[in-house]
Amino acid sequence: MPPSSTWTLHAQLQKDTIDIGDLPLSRVLVIKDANYPWLMLVPRRADTVEIIDLDEVEQGQLMTEINRVSRALKEVTKCDKLNVAALGNMVPQLHIHIVARRKTDAAWPRPVWGVMPPLAHDAAEVQTFISELRRKIWLG
Amino acid sequence: MPPSSTWTLHAQLQKDTIDIGDLPLSRVLVIKDANYPWLMLVPRRADTVEIIDLDEVEQGQLMTEINRVSRALKEVTKCDKLNVAALGNMVPQLHIHIVARRKTDAAWPRPVWGVMPPLAHDAAEVQTFISELRRKIWLG
Repeated sequence: MPPSSTWTLHAQLQKDTIDIGDLPLSRVLVIKDANYPWLMLVPRRADTVEIIDLDEVEQGQLMTEINRVSRALKEVTKCDKLNVAALGNMVPQLHIHIVARRKTDAAWPRPVWGVMPPLAHDAAEVQTFISELRRKIWLG
Repeated sequence: MPPSSTWTLHAQLQKDTIDIGDLPLSRVLVIKDANYPWLMLVPRRADTVEIIDLDEVEQGQLMTEINRVSRALKEVTKCDKLNVAALGNMVPQLHIHIVARRKTDAAWPRPVWGVMPPLAHDAAEVQTFISELRRKIWLG
């Protein structure tokens, strides 16, 4: 990759998500799929594909942000299990999935990727979800 | 879960893996599946299901160990992509998958879980792989 000083959210992630705010390192996004409460953290660092591309301080901050967002998601959803994953086989920009799983969801116990076509959110429900999350994460 | 002071590796993980040594927090395991170079970290903390069940110091140490093991795996395999994931929908004991992916592997670009039946390792090949990994990770 050519060196670059400017981070911008990958076009595919922009299309698939709702921006709910920034933590010190990462943008926090909601995936547009009502099958599961599904968040994403994207570290705002250009040319970063793997967790190991972050330096040690950034890696520590990423874990802090995974912890905060995971706790908020669990509190808001009362889910049965959290799934946390950095895959990136389709979209190379480093992004971390944080998914609230229920034993009754459409993919359980399989991972969520590729199982169900995305389901559109109810506009009011997703706004309530985002408001609760923003309060728990202490975003803005 | 009842409180417990003694950690032991979950029976299913014990069955599916080869123990290659301990880092300060986690046991390092190789998954018995030759479809992909596939490692696992299991923090040696009893009654721990989620990353958020670890305290902040343990979370930081987990990230340090993910970084070290990921770097070693990438150097040994020259893989195209790393997949790092804490899922735990089947086995509740906290465990982190670190998988070396190639664009030519059997599941690419899908995640590896549930795609291919496990393939037995060649005994000599897996021993070479483990020796190289142990040297890179600086395991004993």
